[in-house]
Amino acid sequence: MSAQADEIEARVRSIYERAAFVQALGIRLESAAAGTVTAVLPVRPDHLQQDGLVHAGVLATMADHAAGAAAVTGVAPEETVLSVEFKLNLLRPARGPELRVRAEVLRQGRRLCVVESSVFGGPRDAPELVAKATVTLAVVPADVGRRGALRPGRT
Amino acid sequence: MSAQADEIEARVRSIYERAAFVQALGIRLESAAAGTVTAVLPVRPDHLQQDGLVHAGVLATMADHAAGAAAVTGVAPEETVLSVEFKLNLLRPARGPELRVRAEVLRQGRRLCVVESSVFGGPRDAPELVAKATVTLAVVPADVGRRGALRPGRT
Amino acid sequence: MSAQADEIEARVRSIYERAAFVQALGIRLESAAAGTVTAVLPVRPDHLQQDGLVHAGVLATMADHAAGAAAVTGVAPEETVLSVEFKLNLLRPARGPELRVRAEVLRQGRRLCVVESSVFGGPRDAPELVAKATVTLAVVPADVGRRGALRPGRT
Amino acid sequence: MSAQADEIEARVRSIYERAAFVQALGIRLESAAAGTVTAVLPVRPDHLQQDGLVHAGVLATMADHAAGAAAVTGVAPEETVLSVEFKLNLLRPARGPELRVRAEVLRQGRRLCVVESSVFGGPRDAPELVAKATVTLAVVPADVGRRGALRPGRT
Repeated sequence: MSAQADEIEARVRSIYERAAFVQALGIRLESAAAGTVTAVLPVRPDHLQQDGLVHAGVLATMADHAAGAAAVTGVAPEETVLSVEFKLNLLRPARGPELRVRAEVLRQGRRLCVVESSVFGGPRDAPELVAKATVTLAVVPADVGRRGALRPGRT
Repeated sequence: MSAQADEIEARVRSIYERAAFVQALGIRLESAAAGTVTAVLPVRPDHLQQDGLVHAGVLATMADHAAGAAAVTGVAPEETVLSVEFKLNLLRPARGPELRVRAEVLRQGRRLCVVESSVFGGPRDAPELVAKATVTLAVVPADVGRRGALRPGRT
Repeated sequence: MSAQADEIEARVRSIYERAAFVQALGIRLESAAAGTVTAVLPVRPDHLQQDGLVHAGVLATMADHAAGAAAVTGVAPEETVLSVEFKLNLLRPARGPELRVRAEVLRQGRRLCVVESSVFGGPRDAPELVAKATVTLAVVPADVGRRGALRPGRT
Repeated sequence: MSAQADEIEARVRSIYERAAFVQALGIRLESAAAGTVTAVLPVRPDHLQQDGLVHAGVLATMADHAAGAAAVTGVAPEETVLSVEFKLNLLRPARGPELRVRAEVLRQGRRLCVVESSVFGGPRDAPELVAKATVTLAVVPADVGRRGALRPGRT
């Protein structure tokens, strides 16, 4: 692995490990490279909604977080990203034993990024697409990210 | 409270109480009436992302679940709803001490419903809108809901 | 009308009159004030799709353009806005004799704005909501707008 | 070309030729096959907005119409589709001399379809993605399509 690939992987790993909600759900980073990230979630009973399906909020969390991580691979070290909006289509009932998300940057800009996230379910050797999201993110100074100052209205 | 109002409240309460993910997050139903639902979430450290803001996935969960509950108030007892897609705009950094969501049905149809969910943060006497979602839901037989059979492709 | 109200009205009017596509469709500005714009479209046969309904693209044009005009009322004279993304829900079949759109700014930021547009059809004394859009716009220098340089990727 | 391919092409062609708004804009069907449609638009001065870019409403029209046509390739002869909602991300400034849209079905269901449309601009030998849409459509009886009865609320 090159030094740059190492750096990208470390930066994305940090975004997964420092995100308490993502840790609480059990989402694990699987791979990271320039413009793309994959992560995995072993489905647990506390991820389900009232009919026994994985809650749309769990899919949204996987999709949004991977999108942010993928966008971060393309911004400068002193910058980070914040989600501005996303849209999620639920394509099939999401069931376990595990879900996998793959985020790919569609457009990396100096101020705005657009990322697509695909969430797959079912067995690993026959995955099926269960949800697809498009996420728009704003590029902000890293300390602005910590102050949360870039949501529209502060921006 | 009328018998019908009692029924609506009981039905929506069941949708909150039987949803393991919603219970795990700590989202509590506050009120339910025909076409509208409100719920509250006391913010906890495990709801946050890497910069100390409430994770977008938490907001999405509140918005989507309240939308489904609001839509259910308008369908027959032998029917339920499943989210088809939603879009969430993150308007301001979401911080505690608690978040409140209000879902209102924009269009109740025999097969499709459209619901808007507004998520508010900040102190209860000076709430500010932190996120707004539009949710499209399909009306399905209650047992189809349990089989998850109505996502497009099965539908 | 105050001097400021005059200025807002003139600025929005210019955005309608200089937009060739909006003129070609026949969309007319009706009113403009800080944060809100209304416009009207007399429905013509060439606005329809294959089943005799108003084409979703016509509704999208009305919604997006009014959103941009509403956002412009809140930016400095040397700035303008460009649409980043929008989502449109088609709620009821759209028919004439005329359509009316009302755009209202949900969040006016220094860099990003979020605007909601509601499109109404049917008779003027009994309008019904036929479509609802949420539009995200970027605030850019006025000359960047002319160069189209702010779409993500250039931005 | 097989008999089935002929039928698909004829059906999609009819959806383009009977849509007055699409004809008025000058959008021409280029190709149609099961689950995918491409169309082309030579850019004209009356497609532009106030800053000389192609209006987002033009891109939305191309994206939505191609999505509907692609979805129709997968429904029975006595059925048609109606757009329920769509989301469009504007990725780069759209300029001519022509635009090309490619729609691909992501999920074909008995009641709901989800289609992605990509709009490309620039020279034909070096196209660049200028917009991307996700479109949700309802499958309805062909005569319901003509009555416009399936938008949520009638449905």
